[in-house]
Amino acid sequence: MRQKYQIFFIFVIFCFSQKIFVRAQPPAAVDSERISKIYQRCLADGKGYDWLRVLCKEIGHRLSGTPEAQKAVVYTKSLMDSAGFDRVELQPCMVPSWKRGMVQEVAIVTGSGKKIKLNALSIGNSLGSDKKNIIGQVVEVNNFEELEQKGEKEIMNKIVLFNRPFDDALYNTFQAYSQAVNQRGNGASKAAKYGALAVLVRSMSTLHDQYPHTGALHYDEAIKKIPAFSISNRDADLLHKLLTKEKVNVEVQNDCKMDKDVLSYNVIGELRGTEHPEEIILVGGHLDSWDVGEGAHDDGAGCVQSLEVLKILKDIGYKPKRTIRCVMFMNEENGLKGGQAYADSSNARKEFHLASIESDRGGYTPRGFSVENNDTSGESYLAQLKKFEYMFDAYDLVIKPGGSGADISPLKSQKGAMIGFLPDPQRYFDLHHSEKDVFEEVNKRELLLGTAAMTALVYLIDQYGLKK
Amino acid sequence: MRQKYQIFFIFVIFCFSQKIFVRAQPPAAVDSERISKIYQRCLADGKGYDWLRVLCKEIGHRLSGTPEAQKAVVYTKSLMDSAGFDRVELQPCMVPSWKRGMVQEVAIVTGSGKKIKLNALSIGNSLGSDKKNIIGQVVEVNNFEELEQKGEKEIMNKIVLFNRPFDDALYNTFQAYSQAVNQRGNGASKAAKYGALAVLVRSMSTLHDQYPHTGALHYDEAIKKIPAFSISNRDADLLHKLLTKEKVNVEVQNDCKMDKDVLSYNVIGELRGTEHPEEIILVGGHLDSWDVGEGAHDDGAGCVQSLEVLKILKDIGYKPKRTIRCVMFMNEENGLKGGQAYADSSNARKEFHLASIESDRGGYTPRGFSVENNDTSGESYLAQLKKFEYMFDAYDLVIKPGGSGADISPLKSQKGAMIGFLPDPQRYFDLHHSEKDVFEEVNKRELLLGTAAMTALVYLIDQYGLKK
Repeated sequence: MRQKYQIFFIFVIFCFSQKIFVRAQPPAAVDSERISKIYQRCLADGKGYDWLRVLCKEIGHRLSGTPEAQKAVVYTKSLMDSAGFDRVELQPCMVPSWKRGMVQEVAIVTGSGKKIKLNALSIGNSLGSDKKNIIGQVVEVNNFEELEQKGEKEIMNKIVLFNRPFDDALYNTFQAYSQAVNQRGNGASKAAKYGALAVLVRSMSTLHDQYPHTGALHYDEAIKKIPAFSISNRDADLLHKLLTKEKVNVEVQNDCKMDKDVLSYNVIGELRGTEHPEEIILVGGHLDSWDVGEGAHDDGAGCVQSLEVLKILKDIGYKPKRTIRCVMFMNEENGLKGGQAYADSSNARKEFHLASIESDRGGYTPRGFSVENNDTSGESYLAQLKKFEYMFDAYDLVIKPGGSGADISPLKSQKGAMIGFLPDPQRYFDLHHSEKDVFEEVNKRELLLGTAAMTALVYLIDQYGLKK
Repeated sequence: MRQKYQIFFIFVIFCFSQKIFVRAQPPAAVDSERISKIYQRCLADGKGYDWLRVLCKEIGHRLSGTPEAQKAVVYTKSLMDSAGFDRVELQPCMVPSWKRGMVQEVAIVTGSGKKIKLNALSIGNSLGSDKKNIIGQVVEVNNFEELEQKGEKEIMNKIVLFNRPFDDALYNTFQAYSQAVNQRGNGASKAAKYGALAVLVRSMSTLHDQYPHTGALHYDEAIKKIPAFSISNRDADLLHKLLTKEKVNVEVQNDCKMDKDVLSYNVIGELRGTEHPEEIILVGGHLDSWDVGEGAHDDGAGCVQSLEVLKILKDIGYKPKRTIRCVMFMNEENGLKGGQAYADSSNARKEFHLASIESDRGGYTPRGFSVENNDTSGESYLAQLKKFEYMFDAYDLVIKPGGSGADISPLKSQKGAMIGFLPDPQRYFDLHHSEKDVFEEVNKRELLLGTAAMTALVYLIDQYGLKK
């Protein structure tokens, strides 16, 4: 019988190791009721959609360093002030001041000298062509390996087209994005190394349409900086088709520039904890956006959701045990200076972020949360948070491993839980970083359900804590 | 030690009873790989979106009995023929022929006699006002109890406004719909019983906008049939506001009528099973739509998804053990004659539908499947299907209790598994039964992911069967 005894315990250990018991946990009625109340309150009375309308329609796009970004700072601070949070702060940070300029032209020059204009946007942080037209033969590559193989011999004085598409067959569009985005982020310096004059980059998008999608590039400071353009996927396909038949010359021109850094702010509000004020639960998004569209999904949605998490908790009379802090970061898009300034200041004050949750994947219907491996020892954050999953069964949300968010990434060193809010990913890259990212593309219920999901998770972490 | 032995077995039984082991089942590598292949194929090469474009843009809305409905029959049969299914059939059924007519007018008549026109649609199956203007004072009620309390005394010769809104606070919009829809379905006869002249019904919609949403009503044959109109939610709110201040008269007029039944068809295609051809796995949607919009989400989406389930299985060279059948039902919207004819014929042939899956909740991103309690004995269908759930973990799908679909509902008597495909429900009632239900509102990836989810479930049921 001793053997049976052992089998029993091995069995129990096996079950725990497989997290088999998680879903069998009996629901805590009071939590369940409170979460239900949070959802009802968000759906019936949520204000985030109206706030987002102001951010998008009255203020508009909010590139770091612009007057619109400053208006967004003032507006969202005023929302926090009138919500009566325990503390509201504007946290200074110096941010880049990139100017798109008035000209961004890419045209195919035909044999007869006629020009066919393409839909193009200078890639964010790109330098301009110094008021000159640059004309060059197009060389198409799909990746950096192909570029390297061609080398100076084939790249010198040419214009490189990076044309590796999103992999449509992938279920997760963020995976498709991450597999393609180095073309936009590093293509310019990679091509300049072999003497390219400029680069064109296929848009980072799930759609095959006429809209170019901008985004940031990062120049290698040791290499000559050349102009970079995003072109629409239809135009990228057109170029590809032409290149299978003949040599193609394009002419490009732009006048963007990087001015001196300017002063801007993170906008911070908090509800002070009654029992463990030193343990911070952060919810955040970024207030800046690209200078096309209205930054509705990216990331006005995340900002209004984060702000409303605190407002809902306050409005239902909840007194948090821990400090709940909303941070609207500045400059996620082309510098991450707000995120860095926030972490630097937090580290200097020896703060501890027990959990940081970022919403920066759009205001679509919630699917769950992803948790980074940021564990020191003991039970992983993922395993601890998985124990809350059954509380979300009624809302079809899952908690799974994955990334968190760019703005909060500098906080990883504090070794708290790093969490990403996961809205449905299917439509996000249809409009991301393009003029299509406007208020009309956001559905009120979907946006508010995101707020509800985030509020519920914050509530549960506040109630039960997390072990480091 | 005997006691420990018992505890161990009690423990094991408890775990099984809680379905704790379901998620711990090791993934069957070959199934997992096949499902992955199905998803990739759908996303990269799916044709459903192109078929839907034809249904919506070339054919248009497809009310039962219209030439457009017949065109849709011919078109989808041609798709089945060219896909090379083992059997393609047009199954005759007689369907109602309701005609909206040219006039549907609802206007507030002001004190000075001026008319303020409201956005209105005759409710489907409504009779017309016989070319007369009907003028009456509006009486607002929220439910049938209020109506009954008012009785003949307050209702006689009045026009009743049913104005109970969707409950915004509910997470599930289908629940909100089911709580409101009896106003549209039965309001006319309920009000006519007390002598009302006509009824206005607040639109069954999640949005508070200017669009009226149609849908079916069912007259009680023992009661006088009076005209019924759906009005936009903005107009319903306007009427409510006016009624708090003063008496309001409205004038209504319409000229719709119900013609004689006409011949139409269900469109059926199948892949014959190699081992158990007598066990049928059905996937279906309905081909008819309302006569506003294009029937894109309701239910062009379900039709093209169902058709593509079979095509994908055929294209990847899968030989089903059981018979896989796609049925595009006619006349779900205002009669369910196709669904009834299908079940009658199936019963007469003594067929057995092992599982019937309907997609009639829009072409939005998939959330899972709901399974009806249609069990005879033994392990419930829900429990059996839950065992497949872990195969969908990578696609964030759940299998849970719930309804299946209207068209397949007459098949319940065969006692097979009744399954509803569950797309995300948040946006569906924004456009359902209105002129906003058009092709542009369907996202290609979301639509094709629905096809993939349905194909994967059909594959699993085919592989492992279900116990009755």
